[in-house]
Amino acid sequence: MNTSSLSEAFNHAPYHISGHGPRTVQMLKDALENMDGQQAADRYGTGAIIEVFERKMAQYLGKQSAMFFPSGTMAQQIALRIWCDRQNLFKVAYHPLCHLEIHEQDGLKMLHPIEPILLADPTRLIGVADVESLSEPIAALLLELPQREIGGQLPDYETLEEISGWCRSRDIKRHLDGARLFECLPYYHKTAAEIGKLFDSVYVSFYKGIGGIAGAILAGDEDFIQLARVWKRRYGGDLISLYPYIVSANDSFDRRIGKMAQYYADAKELAALFNGIRRFSTEPEVPVTNMFHAHIDQTPSAIEPVLVAIYQDTGIGLTGWLRPCDGGSMFEVSIGDAFATIPKDPLRQTFALLDSKLSAL
Amino acid sequence: MNTSSLSEAFNHAPYHISGHGPRTVQMLKDALENMDGQQAADRYGTGAIIEVFERKMAQYLGKQSAMFFPSGTMAQQIALRIWCDRQNLFKVAYHPLCHLEIHEQDGLKMLHPIEPILLADPTRLIGVADVESLSEPIAALLLELPQREIGGQLPDYETLEEISGWCRSRDIKRHLDGARLFECLPYYHKTAAEIGKLFDSVYVSFYKGIGGIAGAILAGDEDFIQLARVWKRRYGGDLISLYPYIVSANDSFDRRIGKMAQYYADAKELAALFNGIRRFSTEPEVPVTNMFHAHIDQTPSAIEPVLVAIYQDTGIGLTGWLRPCDGGSMFEVSIGDAFATIPKDPLRQTFALLDSKLSAL
Repeated sequence: MNTSSLSEAFNHAPYHISGHGPRTVQMLKDALENMDGQQAADRYGTGAIIEVFERKMAQYLGKQSAMFFPSGTMAQQIALRIWCDRQNLFKVAYHPLCHLEIHEQDGLKMLHPIEPILLADPTRLIGVADVESLSEPIAALLLELPQREIGGQLPDYETLEEISGWCRSRDIKRHLDGARLFECLPYYHKTAAEIGKLFDSVYVSFYKGIGGIAGAILAGDEDFIQLARVWKRRYGGDLISLYPYIVSANDSFDRRIGKMAQYYADAKELAALFNGIRRFSTEPEVPVTNMFHAHIDQTPSAIEPVLVAIYQDTGIGLTGWLRPCDGGSMFEVSIGDAFATIPKDPLRQTFALLDSKLSAL
Repeated sequence: MNTSSLSEAFNHAPYHISGHGPRTVQMLKDALENMDGQQAADRYGTGAIIEVFERKMAQYLGKQSAMFFPSGTMAQQIALRIWCDRQNLFKVAYHPLCHLEIHEQDGLKMLHPIEPILLADPTRLIGVADVESLSEPIAALLLELPQREIGGQLPDYETLEEISGWCRSRDIKRHLDGARLFECLPYYHKTAAEIGKLFDSVYVSFYKGIGGIAGAILAGDEDFIQLARVWKRRYGGDLISLYPYIVSANDSFDRRIGKMAQYYADAKELAALFNGIRRFSTEPEVPVTNMFHAHIDQTPSAIEPVLVAIYQDTGIGLTGWLRPCDGGSMFEVSIGDAFATIPKDPLRQTFALLDSKLSAL
């Protein structure tokens, strides 16, 4: 039994607990269906098709200005570089498991003379004390809401306010990695603009909870976005036309922005089912967004055949991969449209089978 | 009379001498029309939809491997960085008007510790003597075929071979900026692979002569492309899905790769028409690709009302902008599908009007 068997059984399962369904070319066809073919393409950042969406997102995020980027990787490195240039100080602070530190092949450090300071223990959120204990000046603090690599945890709103205020009073720029910001809003009972006002710059993604094809928005004040435009060209991100992603982002945003509370409720329901199984636990125990991590006290090689058998029996795929973790295994669950399509009977059967098969291990 | 009037009259003209027609959302709809909606999206550089196209382009360019990039700006900076790293020497040479020097907000210099050496006078092509006169070691030489900013000029094939051989014998890596490589092939009577073998790395674009939405291919040996994959992620170019551009690039490539000889013939015909008008000249006098620059011995403000009146009379737009140049004006002509759609009578009328109106100035 190897990972590719798990992945194969998962891909063959008609139902998945995570995501919005298969990522196929149909997504783009659907997004284009109601578009007027005669609408002009955007051209190097200009034209209604990009400008209208940027204004819509600036307003939604409560910022003066916003710019569409092909990726969050590009947008966030640029945000930090702008803040470092503005402060003439090339140090930033972020969580040890943030996207820039572990998923970007050290792009920030390879492309810029920026030194990141890792705040907090990797296993927990950045708290007020971590920020207060910074022993050297920094230009910017990056906070990721939710902190994906620890299961999508969130600080409470008061902590956010306190960290933000501490930074503002010391002229430390506050950047929000809001790859999953939309997914946090039901927990905070806040608008995106209310969260956004605690930060000088905000990045959001359109292919996580929103379920678009790709792309990101970076938002901030006018001066910041003007500088971002120059850096976007330097990176080769100022494509002659970005509309295929914008059309999809806009369509997906309108279709799913109202569903975040449902995804959050579904995540809590599903996490409770996992936590009812011996050998399983979730992080966080009660999700605060649409996501959580499922942990199993069995190695991947022990658990894989169990999962494959269950996917084949019930038609429900839980995950296509397992990562070794603390002597056991873990996988990520991220609720989208797919969960609501699963009939209740096979879902109950899945957890009954998990319970009996894992008790027998 | 200002540039926006010229631009407006141009946009209202039903016929344009350059390009493939309006860049609208319909381009993407058309490219998707025959695609199976159930085809899986690419995922971070993997999947048939990206891999098949990359193999097709590697083969076409005569290279071991190829990688799709969102932009040529990103692809070329990365190519030069890889060659500098490999030689542990952070100097490259290129033409003073190459894309990296004048259109990328100094991205190469801002993102990498690379110092470019400008070869040759801006008004002419790089020749063998320019390369031989290099007084310091360089890691790589970038050649742009054709040299767009001087009207799309080309060195003869023997010069290319000589420059390439000189570099190879000194372990200088040879990078081809082939943004318009496809457009050169009829002049050289060579395949892309025959030109490509004179270079260690090749970049080609899909939204110039090919007429796709955006995107680029970088090709070279396997080791080179593996490193390019790492840098693509660092830049934020490793999007979860690039298929909207790939679908369009592939569709447009198949549709137009066989038309380059026609575009080249059309460019020669059209340049001869311009050269028949007093006050006009083209650079080069006889085009060697689908493009040329038209020069007029009148300032933009003198020539704009003449052009606007002619566009309105004949329905044929020659250009939407004029750049001041040596006390006169210039604009770029780049032949695509649009030229062949122009009826002959209004075309003759356009040049008759140009002749009479300019003689009267």
